[in-house]
Amino acid sequence: MASLPTTMRAVQLLAYDGKPESVRVEEVPVPRPGPGEVLVRVISSPINPSDLAFLRGLYGFKKPLPAQPGFEGSGTVVEAGSGAMPRVLRGRPVACTTAAPNLASGMWSEYVVTSAQLCVPLRKSVTLEQGATMLVNPLTAWALMGEARRGRHRSVVQTAAASALGRMILRLGRRFSIPVINVVRRAEQVELLRGMGAEHVLNSSDARFVERLREACHRLHATLGFDAVAGEMTRIVLRAQPPGSRLLLYGALSLSAAETDPGSLIFEEKRLEGFYLSNWLRRKSFLGQLQLTRQVQQLLSAELKTEIQARLPLEEIRRALKMASTYSTAGKVLLTP
Amino acid sequence: MASLPTTMRAVQLLAYDGKPESVRVEEVPVPRPGPGEVLVRVISSPINPSDLAFLRGLYGFKKPLPAQPGFEGSGTVVEAGSGAMPRVLRGRPVACTTAAPNLASGMWSEYVVTSAQLCVPLRKSVTLEQGATMLVNPLTAWALMGEARRGRHRSVVQTAAASALGRMILRLGRRFSIPVINVVRRAEQVELLRGMGAEHVLNSSDARFVERLREACHRLHATLGFDAVAGEMTRIVLRAQPPGSRLLLYGALSLSAAETDPGSLIFEEKRLEGFYLSNWLRRKSFLGQLQLTRQVQQLLSAELKTEIQARLPLEEIRRALKMASTYSTAGKVLLTP
Repeated sequence: MASLPTTMRAVQLLAYDGKPESVRVEEVPVPRPGPGEVLVRVISSPINPSDLAFLRGLYGFKKPLPAQPGFEGSGTVVEAGSGAMPRVLRGRPVACTTAAPNLASGMWSEYVVTSAQLCVPLRKSVTLEQGATMLVNPLTAWALMGEARRGRHRSVVQTAAASALGRMILRLGRRFSIPVINVVRRAEQVELLRGMGAEHVLNSSDARFVERLREACHRLHATLGFDAVAGEMTRIVLRAQPPGSRLLLYGALSLSAAETDPGSLIFEEKRLEGFYLSNWLRRKSFLGQLQLTRQVQQLLSAELKTEIQARLPLEEIRRALKMASTYSTAGKVLLTP
Repeated sequence: MASLPTTMRAVQLLAYDGKPESVRVEEVPVPRPGPGEVLVRVISSPINPSDLAFLRGLYGFKKPLPAQPGFEGSGTVVEAGSGAMPRVLRGRPVACTTAAPNLASGMWSEYVVTSAQLCVPLRKSVTLEQGATMLVNPLTAWALMGEARRGRHRSVVQTAAASALGRMILRLGRRFSIPVINVVRRAEQVELLRGMGAEHVLNSSDARFVERLREACHRLHATLGFDAVAGEMTRIVLRAQPPGSRLLLYGALSLSAAETDPGSLIFEEKRLEGFYLSNWLRRKSFLGQLQLTRQVQQLLSAELKTEIQARLPLEEIRRALKMASTYSTAGKVLLTP
């Protein structure tokens, strides 16, 4: 590994305020892997809503400033710390994450150090670009639809349905024969989802949206819901679901508190819960996680496919962030360090 | 039963708008019991927060207008419809409820018809006045603290702690050795609860309330909470509780939507649920309900005691409603038809 440079370019976060000027690219030392860790040469890394939440200080943890953002991506393991797992990974293409409070590295840089346990070796059929978006959205979609299957829910309702994750849920719903009621907020998103074959698509900007949502949720028995919006949307969806329903909050795109009608909770015995992928994964055994990443890789070009709208170098981070936060319907924005 | 009059005085609700002029006393026919029903001569009936919610149309159901309000009370069974249960109850003092959407009667009247299944015969040791407040609050307090015991929660946190129900929870906490963190909103309520021996009392009007609440909830592991306020209070309490906590909403005294931090739900795996006594009771077997009402009657003069601030005739319904909604800390307001 004599060819490793001593410095690299990396996106640095200077303040958790969501301002463009708080994000910049700097030349920093290439980190070195400790015991149980690997150094990954990053090829591709997406900008996810969870990254945008992190930049605003709204994620589940903060890292000391200046911090390196970017929670998931793919690359090649170029150096291994001590331990069996790092050695096994050396030279291999992996999907990996740095979404842990104790990791200084972030994926929006040329190299990252991460735990070997947070790396998934990619199968031959999976490209590095596909691997870059393999962890956050596909695993979340798989986990959420797993809840629907385990709870034998007859249908599910979801908000932000045109997002990368929303489309995966829609496709998994078809695979598992669980109808999905899709809530979007723009007419073009209705078209997009209909074009994908979605049967139940509702536009929250429509006049009779609330009434239609209730009708659909009751008719199809959507006793499980997935909400990534929070704010008033949480209240509207929970109110629309039949008595006894659960709504899982996994995001807060509205940046607002999640509201609920006391009457929905009390008299109709509905429940509002959160879903956090890291906690869900932590409860799985090592073998369970292995099986999971195998299943997900098999579906990466089908149900768990991610559409890409742009590939940009690190230097264009501000433009990339703007694209990702203003218009995500066209697909993910990838950084290619 | 030749002595029964043909008409009686009854409080009538004319509109679900919470206005004083929408409530009046009228002369109406004395109803007659059908199969499985009994006619009760009402002695005493409280004004509970759930009654106030009903008057505003915020309860779990509405009855056709003009409606007869008043959900619980006590009296003597003076006439029995056909069936074994009504016959057994004839002539007996009972606590009863008319909190069912299909019952036209309300307890704020001289006579009510209710289902024999919604009547609990009073033990000799229980007075009719004690029986009047025996169902709603004592059973709810018993059920909520039952959750705390079943879930082996090391402590609980509650809002509206100076209410009749809040005090019962405080006393049951002592009985079951489960510390209760009590949230009130006025200094005199702090004094009142301290006078009852409460160790953990926090005033939400205090400057450092949020911080202190968090400290107490974490130190005592208050992983179960009971909230009767909703609005921002829900958000504050759920945020203060340790990760993995549950908050049960059983009222909405603030008349606002219950707010929650997405971060509390997602990253800390907290849950917001509702509690509704009627649904809870419905899941119990007949024998389970019998045992329950026996236990509750045994504690009616101790842990499940209700303080009374005033006894007023039906004619003073508007004054009674004003007292009950503006100053409940002094105790329940009873109507004595």
